[in-house]
Order: sequence, then structure tokens, then C-alpha cells
Amino acid sequence: MQLFWLPLLPCLYVTSLCSAEQGLEFPSFDGKDRVLHINERNYKKALKRFDMLCLLYHEPQPAHKGRQKQLQMTELVLELTAQVLEDKDIGFGMVDSQKDAKVAKKLGLEEEGSLYIFKDDRVIEFDGELSADTLVEFLLDVLEDPVELISNPMELRAFERMEEDIRLIGYFKGEDSCDQTCVMCVVMQTAKHLSLKMNEVNFYEPFMEEPAILPGRQLSEMEIVEFVHQHKRATLRKLRAEDMFETWEDDLDGIHIVAFAEEEDPDGYEFLEILKDVARDNTNNPELSIVWIDPDDFPLLTTYWEKTFKVNLFKPQIGVVNVTDADSVWLDMSNDEDLPTAEELEDWIEDVLSGKVNTEDDDDVKDDYDYDVVDREDRHHGDDHEDHGDYDDHDDSD
Amino acid sequence: MQLFWLPLLPCLYVTSLCSAEQGLEFPSFDGKDRVLHINERNYKKALKRFDMLCLLYHEPQPAHKGRQKQLQMTELVLELTAQVLEDKDIGFGMVDSQKDAKVAKKLGLEEEGSLYIFKDDRVIEFDGELSADTLVEFLLDVLEDPVELISNPMELRAFERMEEDIRLIGYFKGEDSCDQTCVMCVVMQTAKHLSLKMNEVNFYEPFMEEPAILPGRQLSEMEIVEFVHQHKRATLRKLRAEDMFETWEDDLDGIHIVAFAEEEDPDGYEFLEILKDVARDNTNNPELSIVWIDPDDFPLLTTYWEKTFKVNLFKPQIGVVNVTDADSVWLDMSNDEDLPTAEELEDWIEDVLSGKVNTEDDDDVKDDYDYDVVDREDRHHGDDHEDHGDYDDHDDSD
Repeated sequence: MQLFWLPLLPCLYVTSLCSAEQGLEFPSFDGKDRVLHINERNYKKALKRFDMLCLLYHEPQPAHKGRQKQLQMTELVLELTAQVLEDKDIGFGMVDSQKDAKVAKKLGLEEEGSLYIFKDDRVIEFDGELSADTLVEFLLDVLEDPVELISNPMELRAFERMEEDIRLIGYFKGEDSCDQTCVMCVVMQTAKHLSLKMNEVNFYEPFMEEPAILPGRQLSEMEIVEFVHQHKRATLRKLRAEDMFETWEDDLDGIHIVAFAEEEDPDGYEFLEILKDVARDNTNNPELSIVWIDPDDFPLLTTYWEKTFKVNLFKPQIGVVNVTDADSVWLDMSNDEDLPTAEELEDWIEDVLSGKVNTEDDDDVKDDYDYDVVDREDRHHGDDHEDHGDYDDHDDSD
Repeated sequence: MQLFWLPLLPCLYVTSLCSAEQGLEFPSFDGKDRVLHINERNYKKALKRFDMLCLLYHEPQPAHKGRQKQLQMTELVLELTAQVLEDKDIGFGMVDSQKDAKVAKKLGLEEEGSLYIFKDDRVIEFDGELSADTLVEFLLDVLEDPVELISNPMELRAFERMEEDIRLIGYFKGEDSCDQTCVMCVVMQTAKHLSLKMNEVNFYEPFMEEPAILPGRQLSEMEIVEFVHQHKRATLRKLRAEDMFETWEDDLDGIHIVAFAEEEDPDGYEFLEILKDVARDNTNNPELSIVWIDPDDFPLLTTYWEKTFKVNLFKPQIGVVNVTDADSVWLDMSNDEDLPTAEELEDWIEDVLSGKVNTEDDDDVKDDYDYDVVDREDRHHGDDHEDHGDYDDHDDSD
């Protein structure tokens, strides 16, 4: 996360519910310090003491008052998280990138604003929304055994429904052979439904129905991790609070193709199904990765996006966003009842990938300038907007 | 909401992201006052001025410092919500239940801690988690047209997938006949898939596959609203942030049958499918309403529930909770691989409904007392716990 400081959504000051009815009492911060300030003297002890240690790598104490407050609020998010998870044997700490530079180097901390989780000689980086909600949910997931045994058709259906995630599935003889190397799932009788052979590991990219088969048998952990790493950027990716910044930073040449669709809305659902078709047709194109955002998952960002991108998020939208300046161009889908077909969408995407549709064209249609999309920070241009027929143009750069 | 004061999960102090990349900037409160203090002089003007007016009905300024702070924090939640929704023509206000008692009476505000939304001569009560996230999402939903046109099989599939909600579907001749009286959906060609007759309205209870047909044709708004009101308490209900307190207050004789199941977990998914079977078998039993909680939806409450109910929420659980004191009894499902069948679950539920399984039995197994579960506030009993074989007993009342 390339941040000077952090996105804060603390969900702090949660208070107890003085209701006549019991059972839904939200925790409020009790004021007790649980977060350690990690330094050269105490880091080894901290690593030993807890099953899991979470370290926030942060910028040095800022001079700016607003930023100071933000640092305090982040610490409070960690404090509330530590309080809520008090019984789970998780340690929490802060590492100052300047004062504790040596420790940071020893521990391999690199990105200011990221949270590093040390567990069983592994390090997991959290680069998502730093709110207590998101953090607690993420850490509870990390505590759970990542391997699930699938032993009946109902559990197989649950596995098939998890289409938003990267999934690995393997077929091994005994339960014991299924250790933490596979992110998910040993199959028994149900192996034949998936045409899985003994000791074979299949990889499901998000939203794909057909898996890729990992080359070789008796794969080592290293080989599996390496394969996942290589295939991590999916053709269709959902933006999720738990890794939203990681996803956003993984742009393609400074742009994202972004699709907004509310899964709970009939139109949004239909559009999402079209997107999945497009992704399945183009799964082998390394140049294509569509970021799907369900506005329902980010209520506080919805109106910000509407303003920034000048789109109506009550309806499905797809566009190209330049991540350097949030400049964007959106496909015209104003004909209410007709969503584009998969073919029409693929034509548009082809135009995006070839550069025919881009965030700069509406700034100057006469091609007087020839410049790279990413290197345009200093350029100024007039207000000579023109309509391009097929596409909405929304550029409010000055 | 029977509260002296409010459950606060403000998600305040959200701050902007000083990233090299643009497009994911969370809003931070800008300090500008947007929330009105409503009184006899200004309430009529406020109702006229906005398309939608949201009034928080709150207890008088408390003497207790902690409670004062909570009131301030709630106001800040409203302020941030107002800021985020600034362009949507929504007014926000606070009504003091003591100082503004007259206005409250005129407007029909009754429950301290509830938010009342005035829109198009209708009043909607919000009795959910008072966080900016939940509130913004709820209000954006209220702004959307509640009626959706279903015109193709894909949109019908989206409708069928919304099984957590109460849904109404009607088949009318022209689009115009479909006004806000039906919560959802006119069908055209697809009517025949649902065996819908012209002008017929069907009611889907959450998680039910077969709808109930509303009696009569050319139904008035009043008749439809009355039908929904009568059938509102579903046999299986999901606890949702947006109406969690409303659901929890709607207990049956002081108890809830509560089921925890993570839908994203194979075990949890399987258990949920069993619960749905049970609910479908018992949909006509007005005595039965199971509250399903997905722990993933409430990360900050998960460890609180684990402590309060003494259950492991990494696994599916079902139990009886006394809402007066959060005393509870849980079905023993410790045999790892075997979830109960629908029949076994129905037997257990029968025992709950007959009183054979209850939250008091473990306090005193000898049946020395004969008392109502709800009227036990003053009773004290010993620590003579005994094991009941089939069921876990978890009672930590004194």
C-alpha cells in the first residue's frame, strides 16, 4: 500500500446496548492498552509469546495535526480489535518505519500502512480497509484451518458456490495427506464428480467453471504456492474490503476496467452474468482483468464514486479508470432495458485494450497530442469536450 | 427499540487515502453541521424542504458522561451520513423525546433510539445498527424504486436468488399498473414460469420455494400491506444489520431459537440447507421462527456471542436463547462429521416448543420449580449443574 497514511474506518466507540433484551451487545473500547510498541528489545519475545502476531508498519509520527489524529485512530482500531479477540492469543503491535527501521528490516516489513501477520513461520500481509469490522473478520478467517474436507454433495455445492475466491482442490488418500499446502479441500467419493485423479490438484480462478490442473503429482508446497502466485490476477476480480488496496494497486499499465453491478438487483445480476461470460471467454488473455465492484459492499464510497466518475450507480456501469488521476470513460448503457451482450462487451473491451477507447480521448479528440496515459500529470487542456456517440465521456480534469 | 441509548458503531473519522493511486478515497467528516435540531417551529418546513427526512428520536440529554458521549457520537454518525448523501436531497434531524415531546407526538415517533424516515407521506422506521455504513446502505435502498420489472429469465433468476427477503410478485398488464403498492416485480413473458395469473399477487416468505397467493384480485395497497404485516415473521429469518434490533425484539415468549451458520463454510452451508428444509416443513407453524445468524456478518459480535453463549462459532450451532438474560441451551453437535438430519432437528425443535428443552432445566433438573421462562428475573438458584446427555447446557446465571 503506497500510503503516507492510512485509510481509516475505525468503527470505534462502539457502545453497549442498554436494551431490555440481551444478546446483541456491541463491544465498546474499555480503555485498556493491549497494542505493543515493537522495538529491537521486545520483538523476539513478542513473536514467541503469541500464536499469531499482527504488526502495523506505519509512517513516523507526523508533524501535521490531522495526520497525528489519524495515527491515533488507527491505533484505536487495533486496540478495539485486540480487545475483541482477547481470548484468541493474538498479539498486536506497531512498528515505526523510522525509529524501528532495523526491526522492520529484520522482519521484512516493507509497505507503510500494511499490517503484517506472523503465524507458524509464515507472514501474511493485510492490505485492506483498516476498520475493526474488516480486520476482526480477516483475523478470524486466518485462525480457521484453511483446509476443508469435502465429503458429501452438499459440501461440494458449497465449494462450487465460492466462485469469488481462488480455490484449490485436491484428491488425496487419507485426511492426513491434506495439510496446509492446499488452500482448500480434499475430496473423497465426490472426487469423481470433479473428475479428480488421485494426488491431483486443481486450481479454480474466480468465476471460472473449468479448473486448471496443476502440472505434476505429489506437488511440494513451494510448487503449489508458485502456481497460485503466477495465476493470481483473475480475469474478473471482485473488489473486497479485506484486500481492496492490494487489488487496486495491481493495475494494468495505470488503468483498471471497472464494472459496477449490484448482485442483489435484477439488472445488476444480469450484467454480472454477462461479465462472467466475457471473463470465461477471455480467461487466457493476460492483458484483461476486470475489477467488479458491488456498491452494496462499500456504502461510504458509493456517492464518492458517483461524483468522481460521474456515473449513476443505481444502474450497472462499466468503464476505464486511470488510477493516477481517477479520470474515467464509461460505456453508454443509457438504453434502459438493453444491457450489452457478451459480444458487444467484448468489442468494447477490445477497443479499450487496443487504446481506441481511453480516458484521454475526450480531453482532445483531434489527436494533437501523443502521450502516454500515465505520464500526463502536468498537462493542461481546454474544456473542448465533444461527444463520441457510443461512449459517455466524463473527464473533469482541469 | 427499547433502548435508553443507542448501539453505536459509528465508523467515524474516516479519512482520505493519501495514496499514489486514486479511486478509493473514504470520506472523512468535514466538520460542517448538516443535522437539524427539530422543534415545533421548524419541523413542518423540514418536511417540505426535503424529498426525504430522517429523524432520530432520542432520549433527553443524559447526565451520565459516557452516555453524553454516546449521544454525541450518534450525532456524528448522522453528520457523516448526511455528508456522504449530501447530493441526494435528504434531510437529517434529531428529536429530543423530552424537550420536543409535542413534535414527536405529532409525527408519531414512539421508540427512543429509532430513526424515522419520512418519504412521500409514508413513514419507515429504521431499527438496525446505527453505523454510517449500515445507515447509508439502507437509505440508498430506500431511494431506489422498490418495484422492479422482471422481463427475462436472468432477471427471474435474480429474483429467485433473493431468498433472504420477503418478496411480492405480481403480473399486471402494463408497466404503469405496477406502482409502489407491490414491493417487487411485474412479470411479462416470464409470468407463465411462475404460473402467475393476471392481476394476481404472490407472496414469498424468506427461504420458501412455494409462494402464498394473496386472496382476491385488483388488490388495494391497504390489503397488500395488511397481508405482508400478518405474514412478516418468517419461519426462518436472517439477522441483518439493517433491522437486527427489530428482529431481536420480536421474540416468541421471551425466547429465540438461534442458529449460527457461516454460509461460506461447507459445514455452515450444509447446516443452513438443513435449516431451510426444516423451515419449509414447518412454514405453517406460527410458534416457530428460527433466527439465523451468519457470524461473518457481525465480526465484532462473534467473540461476544462465543463468550455469552459458550459456543464455538467456527462450527454451526443451534440453541435456545432467553432474551431477558441471554441464558442459553445448545444442541450437542460435537460429533464432527455428522450434522443432525432435518428430522432430528425437528424432534429437537419440538422439544423446545413443548418446553422439554429450555434454558432453565440445567439450573434445576429436579423440576422443583414451575415457572414461566420470561418471569424469572427475581429468582435465584444454585449451581447444581447436571449433564443432560443429548444437549450441551450453558447457563452462567448466578
